[in-house]
Amino acid sequence: MKYHVTQKVLFRHCDPAGIVFYPRYLEMVNDSVESFFAELGYPFHEMHKTNGVPTVKLDASFVQASRHGDLLEFAIASTRVGGASLELAVTCDCAGERRFDANVTLVHVKNDMKSERWSDAIRAKLTSYLNSELKEASHG
Amino acid sequence: MKYHVTQKVLFRHCDPAGIVFYPRYLEMVNDSVESFFAELGYPFHEMHKTNGVPTVKLDASFVQASRHGDLLEFAIASTRVGGASLELAVTCDCAGERRFDANVTLVHVKNDMKSERWSDAIRAKLTSYLNSELKEASHG
Amino acid sequence: MKYHVTQKVLFRHCDPAGIVFYPRYLEMVNDSVESFFAELGYPFHEMHKTNGVPTVKLDASFVQASRHGDLLEFAIASTRVGGASLELAVTCDCAGERRFDANVTLVHVKNDMKSERWSDAIRAKLTSYLNSELKEASHG
Amino acid sequence: MKYHVTQKVLFRHCDPAGIVFYPRYLEMVNDSVESFFAELGYPFHEMHKTNGVPTVKLDASFVQASRHGDLLEFAIASTRVGGASLELAVTCDCAGERRFDANVTLVHVKNDMKSERWSDAIRAKLTSYLNSELKEASHG
Repeated sequence: MKYHVTQKVLFRHCDPAGIVFYPRYLEMVNDSVESFFAELGYPFHEMHKTNGVPTVKLDASFVQASRHGDLLEFAIASTRVGGASLELAVTCDCAGERRFDANVTLVHVKNDMKSERWSDAIRAKLTSYLNSELKEASHG
Repeated sequence: MKYHVTQKVLFRHCDPAGIVFYPRYLEMVNDSVESFFAELGYPFHEMHKTNGVPTVKLDASFVQASRHGDLLEFAIASTRVGGASLELAVTCDCAGERRFDANVTLVHVKNDMKSERWSDAIRAKLTSYLNSELKEASHG
Repeated sequence: MKYHVTQKVLFRHCDPAGIVFYPRYLEMVNDSVESFFAELGYPFHEMHKTNGVPTVKLDASFVQASRHGDLLEFAIASTRVGGASLELAVTCDCAGERRFDANVTLVHVKNDMKSERWSDAIRAKLTSYLNSELKEASHG
Repeated sequence: MKYHVTQKVLFRHCDPAGIVFYPRYLEMVNDSVESFFAELGYPFHEMHKTNGVPTVKLDASFVQASRHGDLLEFAIASTRVGGASLELAVTCDCAGERRFDANVTLVHVKNDMKSERWSDAIRAKLTSYLNSELKEASHG
């Protein structure tokens, strides 16, 4: 199972070359992950009263440029659900063409930045989005 | 040889957790790379009349959080100078502590997005920043 | 008649005080205006091939702070449709409470930055959103 | 007396029309105001432990477009120092040409968002930047 969310390329995303400026792609990734956690029942605006999920690792390949007006289809899958960590594979396509993909590692922390294990309820939901074909997953 | 540039963590970089939001780190990386190309004598605002250097690959590890007011020291080295591509290792430290590091691959393109070889003058300068201990480099 | 669009306050909009950072409000205003022009049948990503609508004047009152997770209701009305200019009144409310309002003046220009009169079709549509009670309007 | 700070137009400030996107101008205004408060001896990263200075009112005129590589000269003067409020006149010029100007009203608040009077030391400094020719000033 994957989580899907669509984002349109707006004026503010684009650079003088008329294509998406890559830090704006990463704002889009963050927005997609925020939307994913809302779907899980653990929305960021509730989570951040006591906890957070800082990104600790990121790799991304920008395959084709995206242009103003493009409708981007993001898909998110878990590739590893750790004790307090989470690895996500994020893909971004437009009309069947890969634009970019990214692997993002998050850690669930308390507000003092110390890691805190996922609750059983959230772990179960994260695991339901686990795609073992994308990466050998281990439940830490 | 490395290129060094300092950036202060400002209010606009920080998120509700009081730490730098990672897409803002990548804006800082882009600003540092822009400053590096100005130092090479090929400033972005001249380059972009005919060319560009889109980022095609990125990996980053966010080791420690940075906070508002921190003075971040960026260092840039070339790790591979290709025909039209460039791999850069970017590190970001504060008071001797690693905050994050990133590898960034750029491609030199014309405005039609087709790759164009680096001029000999720019290649020579990029090569002067080549740090072979950081990565086995090949001059494509 | 007013044009309505809803935007949720996301993590990336918020500052270390946990409230929307005001330049992000203005990104939201720009997104709302972009959505309004798409509704008019003159979407920015088509318009920008030959034209643009730079903002030349802006005033805004930030009445109450908005917080992460708030659902913001934007309403846009024309207050003056000039020859090549447009004055918009933008309001932003949450659960019946005013968060901020802004007056924005745009000018329709060609890519050489010289002003160009609105087409009759666009003028008619802009005029249908004219709210004369908000400001004494004149059709320049 | 005015406070002066220079900012270069970078790639990340510019939109597909190749000019500064106006919400980025307001990020620049915020950075300039942040730099001004550091000069006053009340830097934002210290202030925000207990207080803040949210912007409550803003008006701006964007006179001429700025382009990538332009060196922008910001000047800040106080136009009114209130009990807990502050009105600033911000101008932005490039090579003697006005690019934009803005009036910004801030309020000094505690972290619970209730206003708090400026300390005598800060009030004295803010008053030293008061330019009565720019606006009839009153010390509330």
